[in-house]
Amino acid sequence: MLRWNNDYNHGAHPAILQCLEQTNDTAYPGYGTDEPCEAARKEILKYLDNDAVDIHFLIGGTQVNYTMIAAALRPYQGVVCADSAHIHVHETGAVENTGHKILALPGVEGKLTAEAIRAEAEGYRTSGVQEHITQPKFVFLSHPSEYGTIYSKKELTDIRSVCDEYGLYLYVDGARMGYGLGADSADVTLADLAKLADAFYVGGTKCGAMFGEALVIANDALKDHFRSYMKQNGALLAKGWLLGLQFYTLFKDGLYFDITGHADVQAMRIRDAFRKKGIPFYIESNTNQQFVILTDEQMDKIGEKHIFEYESKLDDVHHVVRFCTSWSTNTEDVDVLLSDIEAL
Amino acid sequence: MLRWNNDYNHGAHPAILQCLEQTNDTAYPGYGTDEPCEAARKEILKYLDNDAVDIHFLIGGTQVNYTMIAAALRPYQGVVCADSAHIHVHETGAVENTGHKILALPGVEGKLTAEAIRAEAEGYRTSGVQEHITQPKFVFLSHPSEYGTIYSKKELTDIRSVCDEYGLYLYVDGARMGYGLGADSADVTLADLAKLADAFYVGGTKCGAMFGEALVIANDALKDHFRSYMKQNGALLAKGWLLGLQFYTLFKDGLYFDITGHADVQAMRIRDAFRKKGIPFYIESNTNQQFVILTDEQMDKIGEKHIFEYESKLDDVHHVVRFCTSWSTNTEDVDVLLSDIEAL
Amino acid sequence: MLRWNNDYNHGAHPAILQCLEQTNDTAYPGYGTDEPCEAARKEILKYLDNDAVDIHFLIGGTQVNYTMIAAALRPYQGVVCADSAHIHVHETGAVENTGHKILALPGVEGKLTAEAIRAEAEGYRTSGVQEHITQPKFVFLSHPSEYGTIYSKKELTDIRSVCDEYGLYLYVDGARMGYGLGADSADVTLADLAKLADAFYVGGTKCGAMFGEALVIANDALKDHFRSYMKQNGALLAKGWLLGLQFYTLFKDGLYFDITGHADVQAMRIRDAFRKKGIPFYIESNTNQQFVILTDEQMDKIGEKHIFEYESKLDDVHHVVRFCTSWSTNTEDVDVLLSDIEAL
Amino acid sequence: MLRWNNDYNHGAHPAILQCLEQTNDTAYPGYGTDEPCEAARKEILKYLDNDAVDIHFLIGGTQVNYTMIAAALRPYQGVVCADSAHIHVHETGAVENTGHKILALPGVEGKLTAEAIRAEAEGYRTSGVQEHITQPKFVFLSHPSEYGTIYSKKELTDIRSVCDEYGLYLYVDGARMGYGLGADSADVTLADLAKLADAFYVGGTKCGAMFGEALVIANDALKDHFRSYMKQNGALLAKGWLLGLQFYTLFKDGLYFDITGHADVQAMRIRDAFRKKGIPFYIESNTNQQFVILTDEQMDKIGEKHIFEYESKLDDVHHVVRFCTSWSTNTEDVDVLLSDIEAL
Repeated sequence: MLRWNNDYNHGAHPAILQCLEQTNDTAYPGYGTDEPCEAARKEILKYLDNDAVDIHFLIGGTQVNYTMIAAALRPYQGVVCADSAHIHVHETGAVENTGHKILALPGVEGKLTAEAIRAEAEGYRTSGVQEHITQPKFVFLSHPSEYGTIYSKKELTDIRSVCDEYGLYLYVDGARMGYGLGADSADVTLADLAKLADAFYVGGTKCGAMFGEALVIANDALKDHFRSYMKQNGALLAKGWLLGLQFYTLFKDGLYFDITGHADVQAMRIRDAFRKKGIPFYIESNTNQQFVILTDEQMDKIGEKHIFEYESKLDDVHHVVRFCTSWSTNTEDVDVLLSDIEAL
Repeated sequence: MLRWNNDYNHGAHPAILQCLEQTNDTAYPGYGTDEPCEAARKEILKYLDNDAVDIHFLIGGTQVNYTMIAAALRPYQGVVCADSAHIHVHETGAVENTGHKILALPGVEGKLTAEAIRAEAEGYRTSGVQEHITQPKFVFLSHPSEYGTIYSKKELTDIRSVCDEYGLYLYVDGARMGYGLGADSADVTLADLAKLADAFYVGGTKCGAMFGEALVIANDALKDHFRSYMKQNGALLAKGWLLGLQFYTLFKDGLYFDITGHADVQAMRIRDAFRKKGIPFYIESNTNQQFVILTDEQMDKIGEKHIFEYESKLDDVHHVVRFCTSWSTNTEDVDVLLSDIEAL
Repeated sequence: MLRWNNDYNHGAHPAILQCLEQTNDTAYPGYGTDEPCEAARKEILKYLDNDAVDIHFLIGGTQVNYTMIAAALRPYQGVVCADSAHIHVHETGAVENTGHKILALPGVEGKLTAEAIRAEAEGYRTSGVQEHITQPKFVFLSHPSEYGTIYSKKELTDIRSVCDEYGLYLYVDGARMGYGLGADSADVTLADLAKLADAFYVGGTKCGAMFGEALVIANDALKDHFRSYMKQNGALLAKGWLLGLQFYTLFKDGLYFDITGHADVQAMRIRDAFRKKGIPFYIESNTNQQFVILTDEQMDKIGEKHIFEYESKLDDVHHVVRFCTSWSTNTEDVDVLLSDIEAL
Repeated sequence: MLRWNNDYNHGAHPAILQCLEQTNDTAYPGYGTDEPCEAARKEILKYLDNDAVDIHFLIGGTQVNYTMIAAALRPYQGVVCADSAHIHVHETGAVENTGHKILALPGVEGKLTAEAIRAEAEGYRTSGVQEHITQPKFVFLSHPSEYGTIYSKKELTDIRSVCDEYGLYLYVDGARMGYGLGADSADVTLADLAKLADAFYVGGTKCGAMFGEALVIANDALKDHFRSYMKQNGALLAKGWLLGLQFYTLFKDGLYFDITGHADVQAMRIRDAFRKKGIPFYIESNTNQQFVILTDEQMDKIGEKHIFEYESKLDDVHHVVRFCTSWSTNTEDVDVLLSDIEAL
């Protein structure tokens, strides 16, 4: 069976394991104040055009999201996100567990729009009973979104304008950042994000690392005592250098972009195969997640050799399913999938 | 100017002030463990057909709601309510501040339906990734709802069935309970609530008291250490007997029902006047809140002598506004309003 | 039986009941944005020599304390207080329930010292592992303390200096403020507090009001969105004018100081009687709470006519007990107590 | 320079890296529901004599501690621990951040005593004002303690009796469990802990793993929905099998006990060297942490070749410092240290 169900079902890129092995006999001070973390920061900075950022390495996506939100917000402030956002539907109320309300707005293909954010912020500003309602303060985007769609530079710039106008923080969840940056339709770079967002993270777990996410904080107001928040939330890894080593390896010679770009190419091959076959998409995506609508029969047939993720039932015979490529996807495995799609 | 904007713009029923005065020289032990609270409990119990309940007196509605929720739920569990529910839109994230997610479902005329609750609970049960999502556990109803509508006994019984099936708590916010019980279309009594709900509160602040709400807990699982939760949440009034005295006064000879019933009668007079005039309702209500749709011109005209609450803009010339009666409403003031409606 | 067990066992000063009655037919907008609250603020301001403060009226002491702390602190920051402080031992973890650690330091006669605060703050500053420990940020004093002792102006000024040096907030819990200001040994005024503290509250519940506390916020950093915190914590009373009316009555002609000063005078009479009898004090107090050490026999004897509060067992035959006077204490009742002490 | 400052300054035991490499091309379902986690559970179970436990793999110690506490306690309940406990002094208020108060009691050589726990529990039971104080409910021990001392089976059994008598949970933080079990004076086994404790964790990070801790939950009341708590607290590692592989490797052939036992042996050599030299101990320890009292001069001298951890200043010329051995300690390095101690 070939696994296309998600993009975190393999260990790590071999270069990472190699690096961990080579340094295994070295003693480090830990907690992220070590040479490997410093070296990793330097490599990431090369892509940011902004030296005034803080970079922290955390362990997983849920943890980065709620720790950043807990650090950014006061108790009466909330998070604005699309109703499909991971923090709203798949993190067991981790954000609310920190005391903050999520103000979920209807997304468009999984994305928030500047207009929707503006309406929410303006609604608060003009409510007349501000002390009775949660202040929208933190805009949460995923790039790519839960549906694999990506923001254009224009869209991000428009959202930034609304954030500036209403004093909102703009944060980008980049669990699949590499796949977003590498999409053929992408016009957004890490340097753009370092300019437009107050904070964002560059995902490692789903993009070649064994585990780990690199959080970039650009806004000074969000930097204060962030390591205290990390410790308090179980996010200050004792052997912090393990994260530094991984991100150093991924960013040193652009490995991160090579392996996620490769995954995007393979995803486009799969997309084209479904298209050619006339199989409809639930939402069109240019990144490593492909959401197609299959019949019961098609699911059974393709399920003989392939594991994919079941998303939801559309009607009596149609279902939304997800196929993911990743940094670990083999071209040969994709060849097999393509011919099986063709044979549907 | 006559005030119809809400139902908590006057002090208290004169009998309450009189009672406070008569007892002002008496020393009490306080914290709700005193004769007046015990006496008030006895009077309320007469209406419940259920002696196995605990009754606590708290200060205000927001406080009752979040304290009860904090006491009932574990961190991974959430509250199911209508999207218009007070806890969701007008309590500054008080529930989330206790760490719990609100799962807001589309309401029907401000009310939750058994079907919607079932779909949510079933979605959790069959999700396959329960550890990633908030467990719906606490069903929050308002009776009457934010729009003045009330649940029928049939509707409550159906909701109770769903709660039993899925192990959910059923809680009823009764900030305006008196107006709900006294509606001409009402078939629900306090005894019904004591049987159908796990907990509910009987509102005082909006129903004749100076301040205070009587929380009735029927389910043993929700009774444990509730006074500890009250203290922790600032809800254990030092001079607790003040609450006991008020509720004793309100319930002793049925005063509570008399004064809220009177308000409902006056509200029906207002409703009929608008109807007769052909002025449309936003939502039809049989209780003390009336939501009508007025034009700019009508708002200006009626606004010359009357203060009402602006709710929302419907279109360029139409607006939703609210007229409330209350325990303190004079028949004569209503006469004035009626003739001014007539004159529109 | 005469009750000396605490200072909140009676309703309210008659002038307050009278005021509530006179205004009972008036309609007010509520939530603290009404004429009575504004009028009360003006009366209190006359004592502050500082017009740049915000004044909010809340319902009870636990509520004021944790709401102010929740508003002031970030999640990694904690509260410094004496180990006998009410928030540490008698508020059911209300502060921790908002997520903040209490750093309790040994008190001297119930009071914090500038030296102890400095040692704690310096310990944090020089720890070298700040991200692993709670930052001391909010200094919590009670004036008078739990043992009836009061801070001198010199002590408060020294504490203020430490707070300035280390960037700490200074907050004073004034549940019994009147009794502290009126002590014969007192050299601290409300104006001093408005200059030295970042925030403090003037207690009503124990000082003549039916209920209510007046929170004075002097530091701009603590003012922001405070009403949102109030609403979120159930502290924004719907009929807010009830609090305004009470504090207006108490402060208009100095009634507050008259009635608490009277209580102090009576307490000194009781103190002198115990002294004359050779009965030892647990801690010497110049305010309305007197802590004496009685034998079993003495407790039985005095307990025949008087209710006092049992504090703790010292040894096999000695016990610490508390006698309180209050705004409602009659001179004649004290006469009875004095002769019963004399007769021991 | 040789590093003795802590026991988490090296990567992982080579067998672990080897295992990660061998499985790197295998696809797993993740989130701890995979073969490696199941296999690791089986290996650990062999040491427990108790099949009715749940075993979860989390990432770090702070995270295990606060997640378990958040899962176990209701908001009015608190944690009893020694005043030197890690959760009290070095986890940035992580426990309070979940809303729970820590009730710190004076420790004896870093350990809690049954008597102290009993006094606290009895104080609550007999307080008469339970609703005003935090209920002690969760007893937190570290084995070994922060000072390297270990509990005897007798001590644990006595504590268990108190816990049974008062309905308290007993939890053991085993960040350095291996070093405790392997001490020459140890009479406690994992099977004993599985019988005496409601939950405990077996530390990996400090005992040979790259990262990870194995939480064993024996009490059914603490098992419910624990994976939901893990997800909510960022503790459900996406690639959960990484933890399973590590613990499988450590427990399969007793490697865990071999390598921590070796560290204990080396620590005893260091202890004996200090003893022989007449250098006093701050607290005597039979495990991998040795706390000695050095003069300024001795610190300088030994500091020429060795990195140790500075703990605290005792007086003008004496200081407490810590030397740690670990699973990665070389006998040869210890030889060097011994001769340098000898030369002091």
